[in-house]
Amino acid sequence: MSILRWQSCRIERGFPNGNLAAALSSCSREIMDTIKGEQLLAQLNWRYATKQFDPTRKISPEDWAALESALILSPSSYGLQPWKFIVITDQKMREKLFPATWKQRQILDCSHYVVFTVNTKMTEEHIDRHLARTVEVRGGTVEGLNRFREAMAGDLVTGVRAAQAHEWAAHQAYLALGNFITSAALLGIDTCPMEGFNAEDYDEILDLTAKRLTSVVCCAAGYRSAEDTSALQKKVRFAPADVIHIV
Amino acid sequence: MSILRWQSCRIERGFPNGNLAAALSSCSREIMDTIKGEQLLAQLNWRYATKQFDPTRKISPEDWAALESALILSPSSYGLQPWKFIVITDQKMREKLFPATWKQRQILDCSHYVVFTVNTKMTEEHIDRHLARTVEVRGGTVEGLNRFREAMAGDLVTGVRAAQAHEWAAHQAYLALGNFITSAALLGIDTCPMEGFNAEDYDEILDLTAKRLTSVVCCAAGYRSAEDTSALQKKVRFAPADVIHIV
Repeated sequence: MSILRWQSCRIERGFPNGNLAAALSSCSREIMDTIKGEQLLAQLNWRYATKQFDPTRKISPEDWAALESALILSPSSYGLQPWKFIVITDQKMREKLFPATWKQRQILDCSHYVVFTVNTKMTEEHIDRHLARTVEVRGGTVEGLNRFREAMAGDLVTGVRAAQAHEWAAHQAYLALGNFITSAALLGIDTCPMEGFNAEDYDEILDLTAKRLTSVVCCAAGYRSAEDTSALQKKVRFAPADVIHIV
Repeated sequence: MSILRWQSCRIERGFPNGNLAAALSSCSREIMDTIKGEQLLAQLNWRYATKQFDPTRKISPEDWAALESALILSPSSYGLQPWKFIVITDQKMREKLFPATWKQRQILDCSHYVVFTVNTKMTEEHIDRHLARTVEVRGGTVEGLNRFREAMAGDLVTGVRAAQAHEWAAHQAYLALGNFITSAALLGIDTCPMEGFNAEDYDEILDLTAKRLTSVVCCAAGYRSAEDTSALQKKVRFAPADVIHIV
């Protein structure tokens, strides 16, 4: 389909600047499939932090595949993806994690429970793995990326930000969380972002420390229960003028 | 329109559990306006960190209003919204910030440049402002929210997380950034999240310190230039099995 549209794009638009880059760029805009602002806001308004999930409703394999892809497609600083997304579907494991989740029932009742984990520190090994993957996807050689490698390692492994590399990674996890919540809302899937859990307990129960990972934040996903009265509460946001400053 | 659909919802569905909460909940699902996974992924794949913006193309007032609303609707821990989004449209201010942005041209060429700032510390004053707003929107009394107030203040103002309240706030800013980037992509608007800037310089130039704010991360928004060859590069992501772990 994209080939067809690419061809029709060539025919309709020609090559404005006579070069492939320009043609591709203008064509990639043609094959977009955007939504309107009203639709975006309808879903962002529909979304709320679900307190009570319907335990009988599961996210379909198709929708979950889309959400998994959305997680994978999350942007990250340098593209380094310093994360693993642990999806807890096993009910026994959920019950194990329940006390460490301040006994919030979302972990038991939701369809998919995601633990956002990040590398405890940034290593040259991780950077090299990313560069090897870059060559695998884009071609070229790892040597050709050496300047990029030095920049990243000099920043996050040996540089000023090395000591805060865990915090840097946590930031990326929250960015992925924001993408996940909004993506889910657009598909009509409820979520509840959760900071109320004991990260040390999670790391032990999920055997993360041995994998040099640590849990940062969680998100329950599924469908709101009809009994969740918090769904009826009006959204509270500061007035726009208190939050947005135009300079 | 929502009234019409609400009525048809009553007719079609009746009140399954005979109570208003259930009816509202099932109806709110009826008035959703969701998209399919393919459309979501088309836009997430279309998105990339734009290196070169087209300086002649500006985001329309309608689209920008939607993105501003998306920012405002970002979820945050306790709903506390510990942020202000500074939108730099003034070209002279952009030029002032340019050297502190490692001379990356995105700040000069994009349509809207957003600085995500957070409160330098969490205060009882901020919590009270949030509670006053809650009462304004939902009714009730501030006194009725006292237990909630104590929980928040005990955590972020006087509790164990008080020392990390700035980091906690930064996490919320990154969550908002993730929401912003995905929202923009769905509208067909390009973005470039930017960590490459000197936060201290920004805080001084934008007079943030006096307002007890500090800059955390930035995002340029607008439209890719046809000359931005990085738009043609394949997206590099680790293989799904390296990033998603099902337990």
